[in-house]
Amino acid sequence: MQKVIKIGLLGAGTVGSGVVKVLEMNRQQITERVGAELMIKKVLVRDCSKVRPFLANYQVTDKIEDILNDDEIEIVVELMGGLNPAKDYMLRAMEAGKNVVTANKDVVAQFGKEMFAKAEEKDVDFLFEASVGGGIPIITPLKQCLTANQVTEIMGIVNGTTNYMLTKMTECGSDYESVLKEAQEKGYAEANPSADVDGLDAARKAAILASLAFNTRVELKDVSVEGITKITPDDIEYAKNLGYVIKLLAVGKETQENGVDVRVHPVFLPKEHPLAAVNGVFNAIFVKGNAIGDAMFYGQGAGSLPTASAVVADVIEVSRDILHDNFGRVRCTCYEEKPICPLEKTKSSYYVRLLVDDKPGVLGYVATAFGNAGVSLESVIQTHRNIVDHAEIVAISHRVEHAQIEAALAALKALPVVDEIRSVIRVEQERG
Amino acid sequence: MQKVIKIGLLGAGTVGSGVVKVLEMNRQQITERVGAELMIKKVLVRDCSKVRPFLANYQVTDKIEDILNDDEIEIVVELMGGLNPAKDYMLRAMEAGKNVVTANKDVVAQFGKEMFAKAEEKDVDFLFEASVGGGIPIITPLKQCLTANQVTEIMGIVNGTTNYMLTKMTECGSDYESVLKEAQEKGYAEANPSADVDGLDAARKAAILASLAFNTRVELKDVSVEGITKITPDDIEYAKNLGYVIKLLAVGKETQENGVDVRVHPVFLPKEHPLAAVNGVFNAIFVKGNAIGDAMFYGQGAGSLPTASAVVADVIEVSRDILHDNFGRVRCTCYEEKPICPLEKTKSSYYVRLLVDDKPGVLGYVATAFGNAGVSLESVIQTHRNIVDHAEIVAISHRVEHAQIEAALAALKALPVVDEIRSVIRVEQERG
Repeated sequence: MQKVIKIGLLGAGTVGSGVVKVLEMNRQQITERVGAELMIKKVLVRDCSKVRPFLANYQVTDKIEDILNDDEIEIVVELMGGLNPAKDYMLRAMEAGKNVVTANKDVVAQFGKEMFAKAEEKDVDFLFEASVGGGIPIITPLKQCLTANQVTEIMGIVNGTTNYMLTKMTECGSDYESVLKEAQEKGYAEANPSADVDGLDAARKAAILASLAFNTRVELKDVSVEGITKITPDDIEYAKNLGYVIKLLAVGKETQENGVDVRVHPVFLPKEHPLAAVNGVFNAIFVKGNAIGDAMFYGQGAGSLPTASAVVADVIEVSRDILHDNFGRVRCTCYEEKPICPLEKTKSSYYVRLLVDDKPGVLGYVATAFGNAGVSLESVIQTHRNIVDHAEIVAISHRVEHAQIEAALAALKALPVVDEIRSVIRVEQERG
Repeated sequence: MQKVIKIGLLGAGTVGSGVVKVLEMNRQQITERVGAELMIKKVLVRDCSKVRPFLANYQVTDKIEDILNDDEIEIVVELMGGLNPAKDYMLRAMEAGKNVVTANKDVVAQFGKEMFAKAEEKDVDFLFEASVGGGIPIITPLKQCLTANQVTEIMGIVNGTTNYMLTKMTECGSDYESVLKEAQEKGYAEANPSADVDGLDAARKAAILASLAFNTRVELKDVSVEGITKITPDDIEYAKNLGYVIKLLAVGKETQENGVDVRVHPVFLPKEHPLAAVNGVFNAIFVKGNAIGDAMFYGQGAGSLPTASAVVADVIEVSRDILHDNFGRVRCTCYEEKPICPLEKTKSSYYVRLLVDDKPGVLGYVATAFGNAGVSLESVIQTHRNIVDHAEIVAISHRVEHAQIEAALAALKALPVVDEIRSVIRVEQERG
């Protein structure tokens, strides 16, 4: 008789309902691929009395013990989100000898070490493909397919909300506020959009990606974060005219001198770069390795079924491990302890937009201020676009340390002819 | 003491030298990731007397028995290419209890069944990530990361030579012959370019991808193939004006009524489609699944180091299996036997370009011929572009069966006002 592998599902929200649906609609194929039947035995919900038609045929409970103490359940799938009690439940599940699959970026980014240690101690699986990039396979590729490489750089569009907003701003010339309102109406942005627009969601994913890419532990606190709230239609238009698009990127680079540099911020990206064509709610992760060269993984970064695709793929992997009685084929991959590059030592090109007095000699003062700070410029434009009585100067620097651009900005701020520093945005020079 | 896993390398050409280089330059990282040292113990070459500086520190042999009879060698890496003797060597290696990693699309596409059966019989691994898409992870994603899905469609740019040529034709307006010459001078195309330009290389990869995507065996003979030799600068320009780019695609679709439809041919691809931005020697594979939606995998489809990246990743997987004493976690995934959709039943939109007499009423005759064959048209343009005394008609059809377009073409050919059927190219309507 075919073995039945029993699952305890924690959480029945967007992704949880997707997991139920995927296991139902693809039951026959999944059974063939695993060589066993997968069955959701119990579902943990906050309120058992709430009517959920998609759970009509499932046993629901509001007590975690019903799942943790059920010896038939071999896989716990955690889809509640947030740090607590999700973290506690997962640790207890592993303590009880159960394998864990999760989509929880918060727990993986902040407490990955503890989770992996527990999985190793109890010889169970702990898989988290859905924690970054929704349905896009990126964790497994980093743990398996790209292992022949030293990864030198990883850059991702890993937040669909902000990518949707920036795409709309680029296509329609709309401003930040109106695009945010539209995203909220469509359900792409939350009522309190901070986690998305301030870059914190992307920062958690950046920490996970960098940990895997560079085989060292990077935590949320190690990531320099800047959101998209200050991006204006003017910046979008300047970017376009200069051959770029603005994207919010999670960036990880390994530097020779200063360790691992991990950040989230808007970037001027050359329009020929493969990531530049990733629009709307799509996500993509671009990886540079010393053997593979450039590679990119593209797909839907959120949503019920796409995210469930990644979760169920992990469940299938665990099930294969159960059938082979062989767990933790690849455990924590943070073999090394690399230093984190301090923000002031990170290197980048910068776009700087200034409101200045409209009189002769201003460009000279500005260029001198950049030069004195050791910042050499690739291009400078002075325009009167949409401005009365003033001018704008748009400068793009060569690659400099962040400390140098900060020094230049301080000097510019002190110049009487500079009325306002309107924007400072990093520029990616490579076209991929 | 750390275990040393010993490898026998068959072939020391472009990819073989890449494998040697990757294992040397990333030795420390790979050892950490595997938990054992990987060592190339012997290299099979055709001529031992040939000087190969990159093999100075390795033992070379021209006798396959030196490797097959060496009990210390646990992994045989086959990079000779071609059907024979590569297939025979791999079967004998597995017979001798050795795991096999290969980049050989010919053998996998034509004799996959036999290879998998032998691997299962001897309980060894048989891995072939590098056989499609060079360095791009696509085999592992199909066997692991996308297993929660029913894949409905897979479309790939899987031949770098033809993609380079079509990109050049698009960017520079050059004709086929001059672009082929340039590709040959740059080493992107062979002296006899047939395998690339006639689509046979892509067809082998299409067979492998479709087998994995639809869990049924698709062999080279099941693939309808058409190359790029008939593409003209006029077609490229019409495509551009209509909002498309021309790409050579490997296409696999599962149809409800007629089984699995697998083909290789040029396609008008909407310029918004993610594959449309894949230029030069880059490859990409686009997958539609019923859970994940659209996903794409992008990277370098050929070259020494990128291909070696995929080969060595497989070697690392086998090594992990050796350390866990657990082989064939995922074996042949062709669980089903699905019929192959006959060419005449395949469905597509078509672009048809005709040279016609330049007189009133011609458009009516042409439209009627299409209509009588049951082909409804989405658009028709009549122009005098670069033509004296004649006109051209460019029609784009709605989705029809191939048999219908064939019937329409036969009727058009019989029309006195139609002087020449200049091009017939399929059109992909979805923007991805």
